[in-house]
Formats: sequence, C-alpha cells, structure tokens
Amino acid sequence: MKFQKILIANRGEIAVRIIRACKELGIASVAVYSEADRDALHVRLADEAYCIGPTASKDSYLNFTNIMSVATLTECDAIHPGYGFLAENADFAEICSSCGITFIGPSADAIERMGDKSVAKQTMKDAGVPVIPGSDGLVEDLEDALMIARDIGYPVIIKATAGGGGKGIRIAEDEASLIKQMSQAQQEAEKAFGNAGVYLEKFLTGMKHVEIQIVADKHGNVIHLGERDCSVQRRRQKLVEEAPCPVISEDIRQAMGEAAVKAAHAVHYSGAGTLEFLLAPTGEFYFMEMNTRIQVEHPVTEMITGIDIIKEMIMVAQGTPLSVTQDDIVIDGWAIECRVNAEDPSRNFMPSAGQISFYLPPGGYGVRVDSAAYQGYTISPHYDSMIAKLIVWAPTREEAIERMKRALSEFAIEGIHTTIPFHMRLLQHPTFIRGDFDIKFLEENEV
Amino acid sequence: MKFQKILIANRGEIAVRIIRACKELGIASVAVYSEADRDALHVRLADEAYCIGPTASKDSYLNFTNIMSVATLTECDAIHPGYGFLAENADFAEICSSCGITFIGPSADAIERMGDKSVAKQTMKDAGVPVIPGSDGLVEDLEDALMIARDIGYPVIIKATAGGGGKGIRIAEDEASLIKQMSQAQQEAEKAFGNAGVYLEKFLTGMKHVEIQIVADKHGNVIHLGERDCSVQRRRQKLVEEAPCPVISEDIRQAMGEAAVKAAHAVHYSGAGTLEFLLAPTGEFYFMEMNTRIQVEHPVTEMITGIDIIKEMIMVAQGTPLSVTQDDIVIDGWAIECRVNAEDPSRNFMPSAGQISFYLPPGGYGVRVDSAAYQGYTISPHYDSMIAKLIVWAPTREEAIERMKRALSEFAIEGIHTTIPFHMRLLQHPTFIRGDFDIKFLEENEV
Repeated sequence: MKFQKILIANRGEIAVRIIRACKELGIASVAVYSEADRDALHVRLADEAYCIGPTASKDSYLNFTNIMSVATLTECDAIHPGYGFLAENADFAEICSSCGITFIGPSADAIERMGDKSVAKQTMKDAGVPVIPGSDGLVEDLEDALMIARDIGYPVIIKATAGGGGKGIRIAEDEASLIKQMSQAQQEAEKAFGNAGVYLEKFLTGMKHVEIQIVADKHGNVIHLGERDCSVQRRRQKLVEEAPCPVISEDIRQAMGEAAVKAAHAVHYSGAGTLEFLLAPTGEFYFMEMNTRIQVEHPVTEMITGIDIIKEMIMVAQGTPLSVTQDDIVIDGWAIECRVNAEDPSRNFMPSAGQISFYLPPGGYGVRVDSAAYQGYTISPHYDSMIAKLIVWAPTREEAIERMKRALSEFAIEGIHTTIPFHMRLLQHPTFIRGDFDIKFLEENEV
Repeated sequence: MKFQKILIANRGEIAVRIIRACKELGIASVAVYSEADRDALHVRLADEAYCIGPTASKDSYLNFTNIMSVATLTECDAIHPGYGFLAENADFAEICSSCGITFIGPSADAIERMGDKSVAKQTMKDAGVPVIPGSDGLVEDLEDALMIARDIGYPVIIKATAGGGGKGIRIAEDEASLIKQMSQAQQEAEKAFGNAGVYLEKFLTGMKHVEIQIVADKHGNVIHLGERDCSVQRRRQKLVEEAPCPVISEDIRQAMGEAAVKAAHAVHYSGAGTLEFLLAPTGEFYFMEMNTRIQVEHPVTEMITGIDIIKEMIMVAQGTPLSVTQDDIVIDGWAIECRVNAEDPSRNFMPSAGQISFYLPPGGYGVRVDSAAYQGYTISPHYDSMIAKLIVWAPTREEAIERMKRALSEFAIEGIHTTIPFHMRLLQHPTFIRGDFDIKFLEENEV
C-alpha cells in the first residue's frame, strides 16, 4: 500500500525535513502547529496545516487527542513523529495503530523495550551485544549495589531506568559515596520519572560516543549505515557530529555494525533506529541505549552513504522492502554537522530568542542546510533552541573541516545570538582537528 | 608554489563560487566590482574588494588595466577569470603572464587555438577527434562552398569562424539558398566580428548537446569527468543541464571521454575545459567546440564525481599534479541543474530587474544552491540575468527530477519574476522525463 497523505507531528527543521521527503515521494503532507507557530516554515511548506493548541508543548505537540483528530479528519494514512515530542512514546504508537493509522517508526513493543534502559540493556546482553559492566537490570537494594560495585570496580555510575537525555545520573567514586547517593538517586528518580528503579554501571573514561544507524523493514531485513561520532557534547547535548568516526578501524566498524543489526533483530525492529555505544581507546565498545526514532544527526550518514533515511523510513512503514542491501552500502567521503542554536556562547549558551533581521544560509558545493529559519522569522523561547543544522561533505575529513569553516563564516544570521562563533573556535581546536577527543572534551577544554 | 592570494575577475555566483574555493584552500581572495555592484555578495564574502570602474562591463569587468592594477597592488599571485568577461581572452592571459601573475586557465596559445572555430575544428580533426562533416577550415569562395555542400549533402550550415554563442549562423537548404546566403554571411561576419571568414558544416538533426568535462595539470596529465547533457536550450542558451546524459551508452561515454582527452593533449591543455559535442541518436558524435574555461554547468559534474573542479583548477594552476587519476573517477547517481534567471517566462523571458523583497533558497538533502542573491539585493539590468543555479543530486534520474521539483517549489524569490515556473513545467514534460529530447526540444515544444 502506498501512503497518500502523512501527518507530521512535529515542528522546526525536522518537520520541514519530513515534508521535503513526502514531496519527493509524491505523498501529501499535513502539518500541525501550536498557536506560537502560525508563521513557522513547516506550516508554509506542507500541503495542509492545522492548529492543534496553545504554545505549551503539552497542549499542542504532545496533545494526542488533537493530533489524532487532525489525522483522522484529513484522512492521513500515517503519522511521522520526527524526534522529541511523541517520537518515543509507545502509547502514542499504540493509539495510532488502534485508529488504523500507521505510526512511522517501530512497534509500540520495540519502543517500550528500548525505552526502559535496564530492560534494554538486558535485551542487548541476551542478544550478545557488549554492554557496560554493571548490574543485571535494576539494583535491588543498597547491599546489592555495594556488591556489584565491588565486583566491577569504582567509580560507578547510578542511572534511573526511566531517565534519558542525561537526566537521573549520579557518579559514586567509592563505597561511602555510593551509600550516600543510592537513596538520593532513587528518591529523585521517583520524583522526576515516577519510577524509583535505578541500575549501576562501571564509570568509564576516555570514551567516545559512537553510534550506529540502522534501518529495518517489515520483512526481517536490517542493515546498518556505518557509524557517527557524536563525542562533542556540552552537558550531554550533542553539538557537532561527524561520520565516519575519525579513530575507528574497519574491524571495529564491522563488529559494531553487526552488533547493531543483531540488536535490531532481537526486538523485531522496523524503521530507522540508532544504537549508541561507548567506544574505548582500546577498541572495546559497549551498548549504551537505542534511540527508536530518527535522530537530529542523521544527515551526516545520508551524506556519506547516499541513502535518504527519511524516505527509507516512510517506504518501510508502507511495507516496502529496504531499497538496498548491506553490500550496497559504501562509505564515501566525510560529513560533519554543526547544530546552530539560538544561544549566546559568550554568555554560557544562554538562549537568545527574537526576530531574525537578516538571514542568508551558506551554499555551494558540499553544503547542506536543514533549517526552518527565514528572514523575518521570530525564534520562540518556548521550544528547542536549534535553528539550523549545517552539514558539509567532502572527500576527506581535512577538507570537510575547511569547508565547514568556510560555510560557517558565510552563514549570516542577524538579530539574535547563535552558536556559530563557538563552532568556528571548535573547528580550530587542535584536539578536534586530531579527532581523538572523547565525550569529556568540552568539559575539560576551553573552546 | 602555493598561491597566497587570488583576484577574482568576475561577479555574481561564479565569483562567489571561486571565493568559496579559495577559503577552503586557505587562500586569500580579492574581489573587484563595478559601481553598480557595491552591494554584491562577492564583495561581502571576499577578503578584500576594490571598485574597478563604472557599471558598463567594458569599463569594469573587461577593464584590463584596472584589474591588473588591483592584482599588482594587492600582490595577488593569480587571477581566476570565471566564465564570460575575460575568461577566454588570450590577450588577457598573455598580459597576466607578462606581469608575473598566473592566469588560472590554459595558456594564451590554447585559448587562441580553440577560440578560432575553424582552426579548432582542424586541430581536432588532426588529433583524430570526430568533427562535423564540412569544409576543411575556411571556405575559399562560393565555388568551393558549392562543391563541399554537394559532397556532404544539404542542408548545410554556414558559420562565422569568429562567431560564438549562436551568433553568425545561417542554414542553406539547397544550392539556390547557399548561393544567396554565402555573401550575406561573409558580410555579416565582417561587420559583427571584424573577420569575414566562414566555414561550412552539414546541418544535423535530432542531435543532443553532450559535453565532456576535462581537467589537465601542467605535467601532461589529462582526465575527463564524464559527460553533461545540455540539450535543453532556448535560443542556444542552456537552461537545464544534467549529468550523466540519459541516453548515452557506456561505450559512447568512453569513446567521447577518450576523444576529449586526446583533444586536450593536442593543444597541451592545462586547467578545466569542456569539449562540446553533438550526439546523434545513432551514437555518432561530432566535436563542436572547446570552451577553455570553467562552465556555468560544472556543478552537475561535481555532484556525480565528488571532484571540486574549481579547487582542482586552482591547484593545477599552482603546478600541483591532478589530485586523482582517470581510474579514480566513478560516476555516482544523477545531478540536474536549473538556471534560475530573473526573467518572466510568461512574457517571452523578458528580463525582470528589481529588488528581491523575500529570498529563501531551498535546502535539505541533495540540494545545492550556487547564487549571489540575498533578501534586499537589487538585480541589476546591466548584467547577466542568472540569479541562482539550483542543483540537485539523487541516486537515480527519477529521484533527481522529484527532488528538483520539490526544491523549485520551495525556492522563494519575491519582488521580481523568475524562470522557476518554466522549470516546474519543463520537469513535468513527458519528453523531458523520457530523456530523449534533442537541442530543438524547446523550439518545437510548448513548455
């Protein structure tokens, strides 16, 4: 069955990205928007657009009822959730299914199994994917925690099983610290996520965040599209991503890719997904978590593989088999993405809302801009601060860095502060140029 | 020797294109501009910029003296002429050389030999490159013309040897017509180009304009980067170009590529150049002319080969050997370019100057925009009407067409008329979709 119409349950650049894919596939698109987003670009570009509620996300972009009403009334075949908002909400996926509307993503069951971090870890362990040494599932009590910590060695990290995005994490350097923090961690988790469950992991250092993009169809085919290095993080938020990883060997790429495919098979995955790993300088890697949705940084993978991941997601949701096999995937060149945020890097990345008085994105060879910004558009303080993703491709990493510097230097955004000056400095940092930075790079270095 | 600073003797998108390449290579750029171009984007993006004269091209962009003065005073190592203006002016290349400044392009001798169409044809014939049947060089007199026409068969085409860009061309259907037109053609040629020389060619029908991009270094290495199909022409001006050609076989691509390389060797070529051929439905091809400069449509070749042709031009002018060999060149996917002109297609492509009141170029995967436009910029009536080149890449031609339609549909340019509506119709024309259109396509079809 070919989709005739898709509702995009999102905003910003990812809504625009999905509308573009729909247009190229000849599928009509329906945008939804909050009252604050009347003038947003995704509203202008979609074939139809409907207001689904007030500015607050819980009343609009998280509003199941209104979104489902629009989807039903406009006779949509499917809903693409983008990232954030409802993208990893198993209940929403379930509701779509019960309304006879295809959720463009994995099954509610797969979302659920990967959404609970300790269940996910166990699932991966059972599938033979290397995981970070730690508790098998939830820690029962303090005694259990102390025993495990003695076994895997300090420092250890305490994580809320319902946590995510860097929230609900504590580090214990020794027994005293673990004793003190265990109950605090549980109480916090209960309060923040409504689930007191925590698990323990060895705290590893010198690690890179390397993730594998996978795509799976509904006929049991799973392929991986190589890795991305997302180690440039500030407060666990990715700022710059690249593909391939500058320090990975072909052997480890293969092993990681195979582990990711194995993991996807284990949960009967379909759609696009990402397996996040920690990669040690020695080449060992450990499963961290699986994101059961499209990710912000997917374009770098598209640029080096030639695969349009959003189109592929839509096609496999329709029931079409994957357009390529693993053998067709060839890594060609180098891609880097900088997230341009409406933040002032000279004032501790303080959000900078307001109207864009002049806007001219960079162009030319090897430059891609995924954005929902335009001249005259007002950045709302109510949503994510990312206003553009600047992606470059070049035959080599060195050329990609030079191209990114060139593109950043000509990216004109006036009227608000942006993170462009930060990116310019980062790209000139010797550690970044060397490529062997780990996830503590921005914590430990002045950029 | 590595260039430290390059003067760009041009304006518009090609000046911006060259400045971008300079930035990526770490070479300083010097822009020059006419009085009308004070607010032009190339002026903003270059490291330095100097006014070289009044609006009229002959007083500014063709003003040898002022351009050489700026180059000398700013201590430029080299001058990139772009296309048009001084790009194929052998005298200018000679003057650069005598001032100790590298002209980024072939030698004055190669420009000269290819600039005279009948000399070029003879040179190619001698090099074993197939040429259009016709006179060997200039026609001596009417008797000579009649004999040649009898030999190659009517209709025949009379061309001024100093002509170009479609000017100085007449078609004779039979002897009577040839007798009548020969003296007229010679008189016109004398008047228009100061050179009465004409030559005769068989008038061929059903032909495609297919050209081969070559790049050559100063060490005798020449490679070709495959072909471009530029058959979509209006009054001999290209409007849409694509690579590869939709109807070419691998054998013919090889043969054409080898002919182009042979041709380049014959004139000891260095730099980027293009061999233009006519391709018959039967697979025969004939040399038309060689452009001894970068061409407007070079991006489609870049998109399918991964080679940055402007960077390569700069590098080989420096004396660096080519970065790749013929065996490294792999054609990957499909690229299409639409020339977006400030013209009103509903009023016979009448030029449409004025201020751009809203400007938002398309973005996303596989979309490249080469332009010097921005919101608030005023299109001058004094120069070329092209305001943007929209280039798309996709794995297949079908997907590239869909992507181009998507990109055109979101390209927002307000305040002036553009050729975007024409391109939208063209891309939906069954003959364009089939790919077997010839150079008469726009003459013979309502688009």
